[in-house]
Amino acid sequence: MKKNIETFIACDAEYEDAKVVIFGAPFDSTTSYRPGARFGSAAIRHESYGLETYSPYLNCDLEDLNVYDAGDLELPMGSAEMTLDAISACTSEILNAGKIPFMLGGEHLVTLGTVREVAKKYPDLHIIHFDAHADLRDDYLGVKLSHACVLRRCHDILGDGRIHQFGIRSGERAEFGFARAGHTDLHPFSLEGLDSVADDLASSRVPVYFTIDLDVLDPSVFPGTGTPEAGGVSFDQLRKALTKVCQTVNVVALDVTELAPTLDPSGVSTAVAGKVVRELLLAINQ
Amino acid sequence: MKKNIETFIACDAEYEDAKVVIFGAPFDSTTSYRPGARFGSAAIRHESYGLETYSPYLNCDLEDLNVYDAGDLELPMGSAEMTLDAISACTSEILNAGKIPFMLGGEHLVTLGTVREVAKKYPDLHIIHFDAHADLRDDYLGVKLSHACVLRRCHDILGDGRIHQFGIRSGERAEFGFARAGHTDLHPFSLEGLDSVADDLASSRVPVYFTIDLDVLDPSVFPGTGTPEAGGVSFDQLRKALTKVCQTVNVVALDVTELAPTLDPSGVSTAVAGKVVRELLLAINQ
Amino acid sequence: MKKNIETFIACDAEYEDAKVVIFGAPFDSTTSYRPGARFGSAAIRHESYGLETYSPYLNCDLEDLNVYDAGDLELPMGSAEMTLDAISACTSEILNAGKIPFMLGGEHLVTLGTVREVAKKYPDLHIIHFDAHADLRDDYLGVKLSHACVLRRCHDILGDGRIHQFGIRSGERAEFGFARAGHTDLHPFSLEGLDSVADDLASSRVPVYFTIDLDVLDPSVFPGTGTPEAGGVSFDQLRKALTKVCQTVNVVALDVTELAPTLDPSGVSTAVAGKVVRELLLAINQ
Amino acid sequence: MKKNIETFIACDAEYEDAKVVIFGAPFDSTTSYRPGARFGSAAIRHESYGLETYSPYLNCDLEDLNVYDAGDLELPMGSAEMTLDAISACTSEILNAGKIPFMLGGEHLVTLGTVREVAKKYPDLHIIHFDAHADLRDDYLGVKLSHACVLRRCHDILGDGRIHQFGIRSGERAEFGFARAGHTDLHPFSLEGLDSVADDLASSRVPVYFTIDLDVLDPSVFPGTGTPEAGGVSFDQLRKALTKVCQTVNVVALDVTELAPTLDPSGVSTAVAGKVVRELLLAINQ
Amino acid sequence: MKKNIETFIACDAEYEDAKVVIFGAPFDSTTSYRPGARFGSAAIRHESYGLETYSPYLNCDLEDLNVYDAGDLELPMGSAEMTLDAISACTSEILNAGKIPFMLGGEHLVTLGTVREVAKKYPDLHIIHFDAHADLRDDYLGVKLSHACVLRRCHDILGDGRIHQFGIRSGERAEFGFARAGHTDLHPFSLEGLDSVADDLASSRVPVYFTIDLDVLDPSVFPGTGTPEAGGVSFDQLRKALTKVCQTVNVVALDVTELAPTLDPSGVSTAVAGKVVRELLLAINQ
Amino acid sequence: MKKNIETFIACDAEYEDAKVVIFGAPFDSTTSYRPGARFGSAAIRHESYGLETYSPYLNCDLEDLNVYDAGDLELPMGSAEMTLDAISACTSEILNAGKIPFMLGGEHLVTLGTVREVAKKYPDLHIIHFDAHADLRDDYLGVKLSHACVLRRCHDILGDGRIHQFGIRSGERAEFGFARAGHTDLHPFSLEGLDSVADDLASSRVPVYFTIDLDVLDPSVFPGTGTPEAGGVSFDQLRKALTKVCQTVNVVALDVTELAPTLDPSGVSTAVAGKVVRELLLAINQ
Repeated sequence: MKKNIETFIACDAEYEDAKVVIFGAPFDSTTSYRPGARFGSAAIRHESYGLETYSPYLNCDLEDLNVYDAGDLELPMGSAEMTLDAISACTSEILNAGKIPFMLGGEHLVTLGTVREVAKKYPDLHIIHFDAHADLRDDYLGVKLSHACVLRRCHDILGDGRIHQFGIRSGERAEFGFARAGHTDLHPFSLEGLDSVADDLASSRVPVYFTIDLDVLDPSVFPGTGTPEAGGVSFDQLRKALTKVCQTVNVVALDVTELAPTLDPSGVSTAVAGKVVRELLLAINQ
Repeated sequence: MKKNIETFIACDAEYEDAKVVIFGAPFDSTTSYRPGARFGSAAIRHESYGLETYSPYLNCDLEDLNVYDAGDLELPMGSAEMTLDAISACTSEILNAGKIPFMLGGEHLVTLGTVREVAKKYPDLHIIHFDAHADLRDDYLGVKLSHACVLRRCHDILGDGRIHQFGIRSGERAEFGFARAGHTDLHPFSLEGLDSVADDLASSRVPVYFTIDLDVLDPSVFPGTGTPEAGGVSFDQLRKALTKVCQTVNVVALDVTELAPTLDPSGVSTAVAGKVVRELLLAINQ
Repeated sequence: MKKNIETFIACDAEYEDAKVVIFGAPFDSTTSYRPGARFGSAAIRHESYGLETYSPYLNCDLEDLNVYDAGDLELPMGSAEMTLDAISACTSEILNAGKIPFMLGGEHLVTLGTVREVAKKYPDLHIIHFDAHADLRDDYLGVKLSHACVLRRCHDILGDGRIHQFGIRSGERAEFGFARAGHTDLHPFSLEGLDSVADDLASSRVPVYFTIDLDVLDPSVFPGTGTPEAGGVSFDQLRKALTKVCQTVNVVALDVTELAPTLDPSGVSTAVAGKVVRELLLAINQ
Repeated sequence: MKKNIETFIACDAEYEDAKVVIFGAPFDSTTSYRPGARFGSAAIRHESYGLETYSPYLNCDLEDLNVYDAGDLELPMGSAEMTLDAISACTSEILNAGKIPFMLGGEHLVTLGTVREVAKKYPDLHIIHFDAHADLRDDYLGVKLSHACVLRRCHDILGDGRIHQFGIRSGERAEFGFARAGHTDLHPFSLEGLDSVADDLASSRVPVYFTIDLDVLDPSVFPGTGTPEAGGVSFDQLRKALTKVCQTVNVVALDVTELAPTLDPSGVSTAVAGKVVRELLLAINQ
Repeated sequence: MKKNIETFIACDAEYEDAKVVIFGAPFDSTTSYRPGARFGSAAIRHESYGLETYSPYLNCDLEDLNVYDAGDLELPMGSAEMTLDAISACTSEILNAGKIPFMLGGEHLVTLGTVREVAKKYPDLHIIHFDAHADLRDDYLGVKLSHACVLRRCHDILGDGRIHQFGIRSGERAEFGFARAGHTDLHPFSLEGLDSVADDLASSRVPVYFTIDLDVLDPSVFPGTGTPEAGGVSFDQLRKALTKVCQTVNVVALDVTELAPTLDPSGVSTAVAGKVVRELLLAINQ
Repeated sequence: MKKNIETFIACDAEYEDAKVVIFGAPFDSTTSYRPGARFGSAAIRHESYGLETYSPYLNCDLEDLNVYDAGDLELPMGSAEMTLDAISACTSEILNAGKIPFMLGGEHLVTLGTVREVAKKYPDLHIIHFDAHADLRDDYLGVKLSHACVLRRCHDILGDGRIHQFGIRSGERAEFGFARAGHTDLHPFSLEGLDSVADDLASSRVPVYFTIDLDVLDPSVFPGTGTPEAGGVSFDQLRKALTKVCQTVNVVALDVTELAPTLDPSGVSTAVAGKVVRELLLAINQ
């Protein structure tokens, strides 16, 4: 009798054969407003059976790929340090096996666990960051390891000019000031400007970490997130942009964060997140 | 003391006087993902009292029309065969009286019950089909009478070139292949191309069955459906397109399916569905 | 890297070692009122991680048992016949391996798939049935394979005096008449009388199929079900009764049905169902 | 083709033949805390199709009764005066036809519209009142026609000793003082004492108005109400009590109020309310 | 120990220093379809802590303004007259202190309470009105003080040509006729034409009352309202339009109405409303 | 114009005059299953306006008491250490002023912040603990400061025989073993035995900390909590027990924790929690 193995739809390759390895980081202890992102990765996986494996946009099918889904890490709520260590350990194992880590959050802080590990392997790493929020605070009520500070912590590691932010439409005045001072390459409000950034990064073949906070989407299509911000991008805009990134730049690791499925009782947000993951998997494997 | 007759708002004509007859087909047994479309027709009728009878888009008023609303059929959950027979019988009665059947689903399979009856009367029938999904599978886990196969079953009846599909953005590779092989006239992703198709059908005055799976709408405006698919059309795009169809081609029967009202606790999906029905009634009666 | 195997909490034995085998039957196509039981088995499994493995009531721990969880069957919505065949096949395999099948519904019709197979192996089978509804209709709108008829279909197989019904507080007049005519042993409204029935069945060591429709519980503690019926039993009453059954009679197969988790947004119904499953597993293994 | 007449299940008698006439009063403008009772009557009617017509408690069937359901009044939200006038007019018509009015609320203020009319016909009227709240305020923020004052307004009409209140567990100190001063016969916290009150009223054959604010039930079984008050009665306690009243005293009119269905997304509250209505109809017709 | 003073985020000026004074009008008794707007003002205030005080659109920060938030009025549900009197009294006090009243509804009827007071001080007052509904009925089921009549009541005070309506896409035929007859300046469907109207009003420096019924937004981004109307404006369209109004014309008072937060369990509607209020405060203070 | 001060209903004393001081601890970062308790204290306060100030059970009125409500602490999500420090500081200030701290959680870990401070002042402190869960783990996935360990941490401070636990019906085998070994005085499943424990503590006049995890209630009446456990106590049982404690023993500080209001869309859980707080305030002030 078969075991009950649950994966993102059609991501049932053997580990050895996989080019991309999915894992979940179900953590949301530092969420300051509305928690629930801890349920994101399991929901994306579980509800992926409502999707088709075939993308008419890309004319590709997940059935043709080799993706491994390692399930969710067991993370200790309340301890950001131990959580980030567990994420880094998992990332390291995947990188050492020569595969691409694809993390499903969880809140956005989990990105720090992967980025710090990826940056060890790729010291010239750049980050492409889609988000509604700048996430550039130095601390949040005294806490340095907070979702609101995650890109600032990444900047601590990577330094100026390496972080390319798109869709940003919320933050403190100081965060926008930090970006304007040249520390990050911030493109407010929309995904405009992405094509030229992607083309530049592609031409230099630098390794890129691609992190998508799903609240970059407009709350109309993605209400299920802790801090919805009106004025976001449409699904088609996101879909085209992520395809551009995956098909041009050298993506060495990626993540999708901040789905809080219980905040959207219609289930649409989870369905959208699953479709984003499918398109990412297909585009990155082309 | 008056009896408690409940109809779609202002659709209170006598049967004899009616040009259009509404009836509901509250069935969703073959829904593969999230059920609830069985509650669609009653919700559209019940919540129609939150609408105005007047459309400022068309400058027409339901008060001026003669529409009869026959309520919902009593359908045996679990038996697609018996359900389709009941729908066909009702359709036949309406057609024989020289009226236009307007069915409210229910899941999309119910369309087969009307189409097979309408095709008997109009052997040269075409179908205009708005949907997110191709619905062209030959079977679903061995089941032939499934919502996922309904247009394929219609194709079994009508043959090649008679089915005009718009807005399709989800399906198996084989379904898109079936369409591309010329069996149906599939327009992916949007309603583009509708105007010329409608004009062609209008010029030849062929009879047309018009079926709208409401998930053709973007989930942002219509989350209350079993299988929401991001990347759909806006309400205004749908409104203009359905007006075009009703005002140009010879619509001999029509349906609106796949509202699952309980999946959208905000009630917006039901309100949208009601407005679609109002605009259809007004446009088809012009 | 480990595979993502999802089981009911601590039910991670190897198949060969297992005494009890759990499987899910995610089907609800014949539900006449409010669907959603298809999501029951997966929810029980997924949310079991909010439970403890230890029962202070029984002073036992799931960690000490050998239970295998085979996951959910893939069932074709819309076809009761094919669904029941798939359930029977799975039941047969488990019985042939000398193990106890423990099915998680799904709607109550799924019980027919197991009972007809168990009755082949144990022709002297009795059924202990906890439910709010008699489920003794001969048909439902002409459909014989309906949740509302499931015990009647079991009676077709087993004959008079073999079905012991408890907690029944809803049904047509004819169903109560059928029971009163001696066809079943119906105990209305509560679980009273169970002890003596269980003792009788225990003393004769007849094989017993134990089916629990969770709507036997009062809707206050279990709102998440298709047809809630006020006036049901409390959790403690159910817990004591199921422990009595499992610890005295010769239970050769069992099921738990009719959790519709999405109907209870608080999640309490799923948590209750999981606790029922835990107590059943512990009691039946003692 | 049949018209779509919607009634409480099986209440499809002709008006002339009916002994009891149901009508709805969908009004909640004076609700001070959480509105939504306006949707109560329609929900009870619409969801009654999830009930059986047969009561195993009473061994009676709605199919054997002659009840007419007149649907909902059209009431002007925002105007308590006009609303009460419309209710009184409807009550008068039913009383003049020699039938028993059975009103479904709406908020509790609607009771004033019936009581003032019934008291004209039966000057020696008593009221049996089940409720969590005393509803004896003289005004609410200056408003005299408020749900919180409705029994006080009834007292204005009937005077001391005519109102028998049960289950009351919430109110201002002054309201309890008003009752203790002998103006009403208030039985706090439970339905204890009802039997002797009912027997007294029965022996004198005085006409009785029976008003049930459903929040007399414990919120565990009836959360869908504007102001839930923990510590209420169980469904079985209510069922037995209402049967006692209907089978002993001379009930000349009755109502059931304060279901706010949208406050309980599980739908259990509506199902409970429907079962209360069924038991009332059966008991009052015996 | 500090008192628990709750304000819209950063609106913590002393009354004397404030240029703008916020107050809430939690009333919805005349809502004809789905109530809940009574909870709007408190929700906007309470959930404002999920917003940033800084607007990257305007490059301004609430921290730099002097705004006072007086909390919610205590209003008697069920009495429109007493409610409007309380609103007028509060408005008068703020106007007399030389400040700008900024009311948070509540249903749209509350606008009458402010407008009639503002019109006393500014007899040449104009109104800019964003809404999905014309609100021009003369009465609603006989009630003159209804949300559906509020702009008609304002027209009673101001007369022809003073009310500039945008985004209107729903109403009775008579309401559109009333506007077309020249009584109001109605711009259907969108915010087109606003710029020239605003420029005209700016050049003449007439005092303007700015009332935003949030259902002018498309239900995709703002489902939490009593009567959602598909086909509305996007958040960015609204944001740009309100900025235009506040930065050009002489706004002497304003309001934001018709958020019904409980109708949108995702919380997005409340977040959107809060962002609208923030942008209004920043634009009007520039 | 008055400031918008929000308190638990009628808890508007001046700080100097108050005997009891309420404060909220909106923290839930260590919640392992379903977060949301961070919203508990604000919801209790905000929804208290649906309660009466008068208790007919105790014949007392909050209007007669002097209670101060200091609002919610601002706590850094993600840092248990900093959170507990902030709670301890607030507790210390209240104790030093000779008042009784009454904390509203938040998750149960917050109790450690108060207990450790109260134990400094009262070294002979005992704890009366109502809960479904033992909370006696030494760590949770390596984390010592977890809600699942809070009573164990209290035991670290107070030692054996000082903690009296009631209603416990869930925990690991090791936790029950720890209690059975005599470290705590654990009364499983119900509140039985409380009277004699309370009488003993009363006769010795030892200072007592009273902590109520609201999940001691049955999920039927209190579904809105992170980890609901069927088989709990009724509201009346809890009400009587807390009255007994407050009226007999020397309660020097107390808390109420684990309301997660968003998990119960009916709002009943919040209403129940508010009523518990009212009864505690009234009983402790007698």
